[in-house]
Amino acid sequence: MAKLSRRRVKPAGSSPGTVVYVGTHRDAPVKMSWVRYTPTDLKAGVVVEKQLKSLHNESEGVLWLNIDGVHDTELLTALGQIFSLHPLVVEDIANTAQRPKLEDFGEYLFVTLKMVVYEQASLSLKSEHVSLIVGRNYVLSFLEDEGDVFEPVRARLKHGRGQIRGSGPDYLLYALIDAAVDKYFEVLEDVGEDIERIEHSVVDHGGDVVLRDIYATKRQLISFRRSVWPLREAIHALQRDDSDLIKTPTRLFLRDLYDHLVHVMDTVETSRDIVSGMLDVYLSSTNNKMNEIMKVLTIMSSIFIPLTFIVGVYGMNFEHMPELKSPWGYPGVLIGMIVLAGILLAWFKKKRWI
Amino acid sequence: MAKLSRRRVKPAGSSPGTVVYVGTHRDAPVKMSWVRYTPTDLKAGVVVEKQLKSLHNESEGVLWLNIDGVHDTELLTALGQIFSLHPLVVEDIANTAQRPKLEDFGEYLFVTLKMVVYEQASLSLKSEHVSLIVGRNYVLSFLEDEGDVFEPVRARLKHGRGQIRGSGPDYLLYALIDAAVDKYFEVLEDVGEDIERIEHSVVDHGGDVVLRDIYATKRQLISFRRSVWPLREAIHALQRDDSDLIKTPTRLFLRDLYDHLVHVMDTVETSRDIVSGMLDVYLSSTNNKMNEIMKVLTIMSSIFIPLTFIVGVYGMNFEHMPELKSPWGYPGVLIGMIVLAGILLAWFKKKRWI
Amino acid sequence: MAKLSRRRVKPAGSSPGTVVYVGTHRDAPVKMSWVRYTPTDLKAGVVVEKQLKSLHNESEGVLWLNIDGVHDTELLTALGQIFSLHPLVVEDIANTAQRPKLEDFGEYLFVTLKMVVYEQASLSLKSEHVSLIVGRNYVLSFLEDEGDVFEPVRARLKHGRGQIRGSGPDYLLYALIDAAVDKYFEVLEDVGEDIERIEHSVVDHGGDVVLRDIYATKRQLISFRRSVWPLREAIHALQRDDSDLIKTPTRLFLRDLYDHLVHVMDTVETSRDIVSGMLDVYLSSTNNKMNEIMKVLTIMSSIFIPLTFIVGVYGMNFEHMPELKSPWGYPGVLIGMIVLAGILLAWFKKKRWI
Amino acid sequence: MAKLSRRRVKPAGSSPGTVVYVGTHRDAPVKMSWVRYTPTDLKAGVVVEKQLKSLHNESEGVLWLNIDGVHDTELLTALGQIFSLHPLVVEDIANTAQRPKLEDFGEYLFVTLKMVVYEQASLSLKSEHVSLIVGRNYVLSFLEDEGDVFEPVRARLKHGRGQIRGSGPDYLLYALIDAAVDKYFEVLEDVGEDIERIEHSVVDHGGDVVLRDIYATKRQLISFRRSVWPLREAIHALQRDDSDLIKTPTRLFLRDLYDHLVHVMDTVETSRDIVSGMLDVYLSSTNNKMNEIMKVLTIMSSIFIPLTFIVGVYGMNFEHMPELKSPWGYPGVLIGMIVLAGILLAWFKKKRWI
Amino acid sequence: MAKLSRRRVKPAGSSPGTVVYVGTHRDAPVKMSWVRYTPTDLKAGVVVEKQLKSLHNESEGVLWLNIDGVHDTELLTALGQIFSLHPLVVEDIANTAQRPKLEDFGEYLFVTLKMVVYEQASLSLKSEHVSLIVGRNYVLSFLEDEGDVFEPVRARLKHGRGQIRGSGPDYLLYALIDAAVDKYFEVLEDVGEDIERIEHSVVDHGGDVVLRDIYATKRQLISFRRSVWPLREAIHALQRDDSDLIKTPTRLFLRDLYDHLVHVMDTVETSRDIVSGMLDVYLSSTNNKMNEIMKVLTIMSSIFIPLTFIVGVYGMNFEHMPELKSPWGYPGVLIGMIVLAGILLAWFKKKRWI
Repeated sequence: MAKLSRRRVKPAGSSPGTVVYVGTHRDAPVKMSWVRYTPTDLKAGVVVEKQLKSLHNESEGVLWLNIDGVHDTELLTALGQIFSLHPLVVEDIANTAQRPKLEDFGEYLFVTLKMVVYEQASLSLKSEHVSLIVGRNYVLSFLEDEGDVFEPVRARLKHGRGQIRGSGPDYLLYALIDAAVDKYFEVLEDVGEDIERIEHSVVDHGGDVVLRDIYATKRQLISFRRSVWPLREAIHALQRDDSDLIKTPTRLFLRDLYDHLVHVMDTVETSRDIVSGMLDVYLSSTNNKMNEIMKVLTIMSSIFIPLTFIVGVYGMNFEHMPELKSPWGYPGVLIGMIVLAGILLAWFKKKRWI
Repeated sequence: MAKLSRRRVKPAGSSPGTVVYVGTHRDAPVKMSWVRYTPTDLKAGVVVEKQLKSLHNESEGVLWLNIDGVHDTELLTALGQIFSLHPLVVEDIANTAQRPKLEDFGEYLFVTLKMVVYEQASLSLKSEHVSLIVGRNYVLSFLEDEGDVFEPVRARLKHGRGQIRGSGPDYLLYALIDAAVDKYFEVLEDVGEDIERIEHSVVDHGGDVVLRDIYATKRQLISFRRSVWPLREAIHALQRDDSDLIKTPTRLFLRDLYDHLVHVMDTVETSRDIVSGMLDVYLSSTNNKMNEIMKVLTIMSSIFIPLTFIVGVYGMNFEHMPELKSPWGYPGVLIGMIVLAGILLAWFKKKRWI
Repeated sequence: MAKLSRRRVKPAGSSPGTVVYVGTHRDAPVKMSWVRYTPTDLKAGVVVEKQLKSLHNESEGVLWLNIDGVHDTELLTALGQIFSLHPLVVEDIANTAQRPKLEDFGEYLFVTLKMVVYEQASLSLKSEHVSLIVGRNYVLSFLEDEGDVFEPVRARLKHGRGQIRGSGPDYLLYALIDAAVDKYFEVLEDVGEDIERIEHSVVDHGGDVVLRDIYATKRQLISFRRSVWPLREAIHALQRDDSDLIKTPTRLFLRDLYDHLVHVMDTVETSRDIVSGMLDVYLSSTNNKMNEIMKVLTIMSSIFIPLTFIVGVYGMNFEHMPELKSPWGYPGVLIGMIVLAGILLAWFKKKRWI
Repeated sequence: MAKLSRRRVKPAGSSPGTVVYVGTHRDAPVKMSWVRYTPTDLKAGVVVEKQLKSLHNESEGVLWLNIDGVHDTELLTALGQIFSLHPLVVEDIANTAQRPKLEDFGEYLFVTLKMVVYEQASLSLKSEHVSLIVGRNYVLSFLEDEGDVFEPVRARLKHGRGQIRGSGPDYLLYALIDAAVDKYFEVLEDVGEDIERIEHSVVDHGGDVVLRDIYATKRQLISFRRSVWPLREAIHALQRDDSDLIKTPTRLFLRDLYDHLVHVMDTVETSRDIVSGMLDVYLSSTNNKMNEIMKVLTIMSSIFIPLTFIVGVYGMNFEHMPELKSPWGYPGVLIGMIVLAGILLAWFKKKRWI
Repeated sequence: MAKLSRRRVKPAGSSPGTVVYVGTHRDAPVKMSWVRYTPTDLKAGVVVEKQLKSLHNESEGVLWLNIDGVHDTELLTALGQIFSLHPLVVEDIANTAQRPKLEDFGEYLFVTLKMVVYEQASLSLKSEHVSLIVGRNYVLSFLEDEGDVFEPVRARLKHGRGQIRGSGPDYLLYALIDAAVDKYFEVLEDVGEDIERIEHSVVDHGGDVVLRDIYATKRQLISFRRSVWPLREAIHALQRDDSDLIKTPTRLFLRDLYDHLVHVMDTVETSRDIVSGMLDVYLSSTNNKMNEIMKVLTIMSSIFIPLTFIVGVYGMNFEHMPELKSPWGYPGVLIGMIVLAGILLAWFKKKRWI
């Protein structure tokens, strides 16, 4: 399961703004690809560190620079200088444990969020750190690893569909966040299926497996909530922000995005309520099973223990036991025991135990 | 039980505003009926797609266009263009998983809500997506399926009763929402009856059936809360909204409607508290039953196990057991066992177990 | 127990403002009594529907019209027209399921609240719907049934005690609400006594009776909270309201009233916390009892089952069992069994079971 | 334990502002002592009702009048007239069930609070009603009973230590409240000791005594919270109040006092969390004990019941049982039983039960 | 475990502002070290009480005076006079039980916080009181004991790295708080490891040890929350404060610090949710174990008790028992018992108990 917190390992005496990568170790080189578009034209390619400066200096159209990998801290620092980013921003891009937030630095806006993937087999949630920066005429996007989450946006740009080509970098920012939020709905769908599956087995079968599944689901919902909740606030702030980087028509789309996030949070909360309810039911159901077992034990014991006592009495070796000599002794005792068993059964019936 | 979330299946690269229907598959053609009224006059009929434009262009009186079915996305898109609706609005009309909300687009207001029906037999809640749009001189209403929820409003319009004919589209909007909210009270009434029924059986009978009913009721209350809560906020916003589409006298009615929704939410919360309390009582009551069973087992075992031991002693085959030869051996042992049983019974009595 | 919700049965197509009585069926005629007072003078009497108009038209002094019974919807409608009340107000007066609220209609204020009576024998709470309207020079009060809750206020008016005669209708409104709130303290006192009684028996005796009492008390506190909580908000709004119907000196008294309601709510919340705590203790105490029973069973079984085995061994009929012939066999086995029982007892003592 | 609510017994028809004492019955005469001080001078004495007027009329310096006992309602009424107090204030002074609050009456401020004493032997909390009034040049303080809570303040006044002599009545008010709040820390210290004591015994010993202690501690924390929480709000209001009765330098001390109350509330909440946690642990620990008992029972029963069956088989009296005649029968059965017992023990070992 | 509250022992009659040390008794002398730096220069040294005045009077650059030890109240009082601190500030420095807060005294700001260290071996949390004062050109820092928490900051100052030398005392304040907050992440990391460890053993092994670990972890999270939560508010206030002691560029860093604290709180809350969930799972898992034990007991008893009864029947000594003489009696009974055992086993199989 996902770690709750990753140590921020800084060398002693390092100042705030020191760029440290805290995620999984990676060796793969960082891939950088760019798209530059105007309503009528689109160019795209990959880029290496040296070419970044010239890429930034071109001023026509909107530049979208996507960086797959945040473990090359030197590259990040260089990039930060080219795009005049505050050291704290560069630190936050590399810090994959950073929680979602929006920060307004005047000349650019900085948004971080989590992309989440749910692995149904292991009931576990993987989250990836995503950073987005939007300036006057550019958008920078940072992913922890190569991924296809932004592929739909790239396709829309290429095909010139929708209003995306005609809008500015603010709309591109919206489109990128929306692509990540769309993943949340997939996760919710999967978690919802798991909940229904557990729900069906909770009353019927019980056992440690169900318990572990309930717990795992609860745990993932807590993690998921943690990834989404702050983003909701950030998008709310983005929509209300008086920054002139966000144009009015885009705000309408951000309102819709905010609405989606509210829907996501709402579903998460509801799911948590349901999972909590399932645990209660599971507990009650376990108790009921115990009751049933106890009843069987009590009925068996209560009927046979007195009977065993009676046969024990006539197994005693006293010389003077007149019943033993009577020809009616054996059948009498047998009949007596059947009557006693019948009375006990009737009593249990009255108690509704059988 | 109702799904927690339905996947938003969009083709990759589709832009926001793409209209996708996510509800149950339906083949039936969409039915569109219209009413146009002035304080003195009323016309009504059904309409097909081609006639929509001319219907919209007529300017006299208030037009109410009701659409039963939101699965024909092409029709919705066409309708959106005729009435100049924002693409996001058309998307939300078709997205039956959309949560209730109010959105003010200047020229028109967009309200979505859930109509709920409770099926007492299966303790399950069905909810249907309802969208309403109010403009200067028209109201559009969208239902997932043909239904009679708006029938009372249509009847009032036809008979010219109340103030509905003399008021504008804002009052019609209010009347339509009010008709849906009236259904909530019916649901609450039914759930309330279920709760009382469960309450009566919870202490007395117990068992898995009651547990499943408690859980199902809790689950439905969570779903119901989820459908109503956002509407409460939306109506509050509608009443406070400074849009000139809502006239002052109507605001008074909206305040009353808001008050009804507060009442509904209040009842839902109270019901949840009561259901939670019932689960606790159920659990305690299960424990009490276990205690009772254990007592019977303990009493039976504790009395007969020592007695069985005693008769076992005199069933041993030692050659030198003087008691066996004594004529007082058998009656003495019998009396001794009766005394022992009496002492044990007295002890249990003292412990208040019997 | 009180129903959670009562169906609002309206004929299909009825408009909002339709007056429907939803409480218990009543046949008794509605009683209307009036008091008209100035600082120096007081007249009182009963009135029938026809005389209402002339009663209203007299302008001298303050008129207090008290109506016992809200089931005569025609009378209410007539009254509403005479006093120019909004149709929604008349609807709310008859709707005994209406939750407490304050509404400001400019020319008059409308306050509804619940009067509660606690029946200690059945641990159940009865609530009655009370509506109050204060205008420039009149106060209307509506009760579901004839009652003596306003008797102290009437007495104070008659005897001219306190400042009530010299103040306006706003002070009378305060005095009437205060009379109802005084009843809340009586209810809290009774519930508090019940809680103390249950508290004493919860650890000692246990059983289903206590469980049912805890549950009933919790249930009544939930209902009570539901009746009082909205009134608290309403009084707060009344005190802050900028309506000129409420004079400044009266606001001081309303602040005191608000303070009383905060006290009531505070006690209710505290009581709920205590009752929840009692349920936990009850559950723990049940577990402790089970433990005690199990200990007795385990001790009895663990001691006698091995002993019974031993005597069984010497009850076997093998021809070649040398111990059976030895004269020391029988006493040896007896002594051996006593030693074994002693060891087991010592072990249980070490485990602190006995 | 402290009553949750005390009935407000008013004669029917009494108006608000009627002074009724609701606390424990007391016969002792009320003691009134006064101190009048300037930065350079201090006079002190006791006073009876008749001298109150002249005491009030002297205008030099600050007058502190302390009244021990609020059961003499006539005296309170007289005092209220001399100091021109609002009838509601006099009512609240005598109403010992009044919750803490601040009220600003322009010419004077009225503060009520609770002084609490914790009796560790009985784990019970006693609270006493304290009322304070501060005017232009006087402070009135009312206690339910004679007590030494204000003794430190009197001592500081007499010795002229600190800034108390040089400051006005507002600082004296602060000093008096601070003296009462200091008592809260003592209570918290004592409760904290109790929690640690219970914590040590909760896992080890269990039993009803611990359960009762946990419950009592929880109960006292609820009561304590109830006494302190409203005071926190009142002091906050006092610090923010724009009344000119409170001078700016004193506000700094009130901020510190507010900070102390936040600390107290914080500790109370933390303690409640801890006590709740202890109850969970207690419950789990009880379950663990039950498990242990059950294991012993199951092991004993499971081993000896089959063995007893086997010896029973060879205790049967059939004429044709070849094993009985064999000389290897007896030792063979003994060995067989030892092997069986060994298998069962190994199985339990594998299950980690032993 | 850490005490919840430490008694504030003041001599009776002491005024507010009396400096009392309430922490662990210490004899070691207080160590005072200073650093004075400008962008280009840095001097450092230790200082004794007498030299404080001259140190304060030098005006060039920024002075950072660090005091290790707050138990020498006379020294604190002297220091307070030299730096013109309000008596309440000096009281709060010595009061190690003081909760985190920010206070603005115009000429200087006062911040207190807790430094926490987690001892994984004993699952216990140690917290140390830290006080910081920032004035126009100086920063005072107070620690309870000698420690290395500020060492990184000192190193950065010495090496002139980062922007710390070029910024004012406000940035130094930020750097010191940041150094303490960095410790929080280490604690969270350690607690997170503990949670994962407990998580692995909770379903598998159970027992009192796990229970005690869950409880201890919960307890530490409550304590930790208590130390951090108020600091979050204080930093928020610091960032928003309109004091001119905090420069605009530093506010950006404070926003980042606030963000870190939000992250910390978030992790704490999530951890508490997870630990609560683990307790539920632990309880359920205990119940499951009980169920398993009960099943074994029930199966063994239910099979062998009837069999033992049957063999008992044929162990009776009646003279007239025809079966005993039949040569098919013994094998017949044996076969009958095997059949009975088979039926019972099949029944348990059907119930899914085996």
